[in-house]
Amino acid sequence: MRETWVVGAASNRFGKMKETGREAATRVSLAAIEASGLAPKDIGYTFVSNCFGIAEHQAHVGPLINGGLGIPEVPSCTIESACSSSSAGLHEAFVQVAGGFVDAALVVGSEKLSHLDTLAATSYFAIAADYPFETKNGATFPGLYATLASAYLGAYRTTPEMFGAIAVKNHANAARNPHAHFQKEISMETYLHSPIIASPLRLYDCCPFSDGAAALVVAAKEFVKSPQSEPLVIRASARAGAITEMQDRPDLLGLPSTRTAGAKAFRQAHLEPRDIDFAEVHDCFTIAEALALEDLGFFPRGGGARAALDGLTTRDGKLPINSSGGLKAKGHPVSATGVSQVVEVYEQFNGLAKGREVPRTQTALTHNVGATGGSCSVHIFSRR
Amino acid sequence: MRETWVVGAASNRFGKMKETGREAATRVSLAAIEASGLAPKDIGYTFVSNCFGIAEHQAHVGPLINGGLGIPEVPSCTIESACSSSSAGLHEAFVQVAGGFVDAALVVGSEKLSHLDTLAATSYFAIAADYPFETKNGATFPGLYATLASAYLGAYRTTPEMFGAIAVKNHANAARNPHAHFQKEISMETYLHSPIIASPLRLYDCCPFSDGAAALVVAAKEFVKSPQSEPLVIRASARAGAITEMQDRPDLLGLPSTRTAGAKAFRQAHLEPRDIDFAEVHDCFTIAEALALEDLGFFPRGGGARAALDGLTTRDGKLPINSSGGLKAKGHPVSATGVSQVVEVYEQFNGLAKGREVPRTQTALTHNVGATGGSCSVHIFSRR
Repeated sequence: MRETWVVGAASNRFGKMKETGREAATRVSLAAIEASGLAPKDIGYTFVSNCFGIAEHQAHVGPLINGGLGIPEVPSCTIESACSSSSAGLHEAFVQVAGGFVDAALVVGSEKLSHLDTLAATSYFAIAADYPFETKNGATFPGLYATLASAYLGAYRTTPEMFGAIAVKNHANAARNPHAHFQKEISMETYLHSPIIASPLRLYDCCPFSDGAAALVVAAKEFVKSPQSEPLVIRASARAGAITEMQDRPDLLGLPSTRTAGAKAFRQAHLEPRDIDFAEVHDCFTIAEALALEDLGFFPRGGGARAALDGLTTRDGKLPINSSGGLKAKGHPVSATGVSQVVEVYEQFNGLAKGREVPRTQTALTHNVGATGGSCSVHIFSRR
Repeated sequence: MRETWVVGAASNRFGKMKETGREAATRVSLAAIEASGLAPKDIGYTFVSNCFGIAEHQAHVGPLINGGLGIPEVPSCTIESACSSSSAGLHEAFVQVAGGFVDAALVVGSEKLSHLDTLAATSYFAIAADYPFETKNGATFPGLYATLASAYLGAYRTTPEMFGAIAVKNHANAARNPHAHFQKEISMETYLHSPIIASPLRLYDCCPFSDGAAALVVAAKEFVKSPQSEPLVIRASARAGAITEMQDRPDLLGLPSTRTAGAKAFRQAHLEPRDIDFAEVHDCFTIAEALALEDLGFFPRGGGARAALDGLTTRDGKLPINSSGGLKAKGHPVSATGVSQVVEVYEQFNGLAKGREVPRTQTALTHNVGATGGSCSVHIFSRR
């Protein structure tokens, strides 16, 4: 297996895009290729994610992007795994490059939903749940994650301020990230007085609907030779699934797919949770960040929610989490999210995370969940 | 790179399914695993294709299928490349297994559209074209392929009977295939008197909208050891792209992505077109079969359309083409098509193609196109 690097990364500003999803995808792809020092013709395969292309009447986006890059002959496909789509794309890119099938691959995620009303957007999101058992009975993601939060509140001594501290921390980080949807801090007061969306989740527990696009270039060490910027060595690329339907799970105090993918990733990398310097975890709701920190082995059961309040996961804490602002405040353009987590690692490794630097940047982890954990991807990166 | 085999394959009957796409996908997956002699727990990755899951309110299908197979922890993703989706999935499965990342992978395509009216179904299909340049201006696939047919008629001495002979041949084959949507022969008379759909294409030039599901198990030779049935050795798995928009192509007398992927596949396999004993090619319209035969190098330019009329591509001809009945008559459940072409090779290799046997079954080729050739996959298989 060849040593495989992320050698270029780019993101637009999440929020509301004027351009179409394909245009944004093409633009960030060009920027990522430029950052990598490679040329479009070096790309051997393009993995696109664009879950809600249907909302723009557009599937089969890969050839359109490759056409825009001037490499129409390059093969492509679109990869969907709900909110973990583009990290699933990164996994395929890693496999293709590490296995020697191509020397370099492009991974790009793009999403545009802002032209839809909230009901339509929520309906699109909901197709990632189990239709006959969940969606058809009225379940949407705020409700499903509220169920996880309720289970958590019932099991552990948890105060609203614990979830609030996650939101406050991630907004503070996003305020320093030019890619973020919400570039403003919030106070605990604002959090505590925000309206209930799905009890116990408040408005500021929830990530926004965002448009956005982000891209990575993945390449073999032996192909790149002299990288233009500090590369991310892919130490682990692990994925796992789990039972989709929450009612069929033995336990709601965590996501089984995170546990499986996380354990697999640490095994692959020959590392332990304490070796990770900082991480981007999937915080579509504040409860999701709490569960991720436990499922990945960073904090003990019941310790995930209080970590932010205790100052352990702020940028200057023991383990900085979501220095980008996370899905919560950077935003969650579904198909761009997995890739954008890696963009944050790239920017931290390369001194590009101005004003939101984390102190140690030797080894980082990204964690991306599909739906309520039917799928999960965990990647571990380190410096050369 | 490890020698990689297709060790199990299954298809349901194409046409109209009562069950949902996910149910059909789970059923054919179980059948393919059973045929392989492996157990569900041997599967390391599941690649699903299900382009129009949105029409059933369902994305993120992989975890649902894996849940049904009793292997919820296995990672999965959904792969879309328009009508070449599940052959793109086969390519990823090949890469994962040949590269040593997993020992066995499941590839399954499933589609259900029959609950939609024709306009809605046509609209779903149309999203695989270029929206602003093609779809938005009223182009649908019958119109786009009619443009290719017109260019062909203008360039070569072609008679309606040539296209008709392709339809007559493929219906005759489908009449002997229990998986086929249309299990009936048609006469040249019927073809010539069928209504024009998009001039010059007649009703019997066009494949139907079909529901259907098909699955393959791909595994490493060293993992399988003693296969339960005759395996298909994957000699080549090649993909390519091309400019999506037909108006931007220098030439309409063929599909550039077929030429690129075909040449790549023959290089990988160290074979030439004359080494192929039989092939399944992408005949969404009769013109598409004619172009494929030329682009793959089986017949000279302008010779593709007359091959069927000359008896060269019938089951007892020099190079049997679409012994399954092809998309034209076996049917075209978009995401199941690429996999179902390989099911035909599996059945021919294993003496399961009763009544439609081809005489030589040492080496076979499958050719699967996305949209009007924005993507293409070519696979070559041989016996051990």
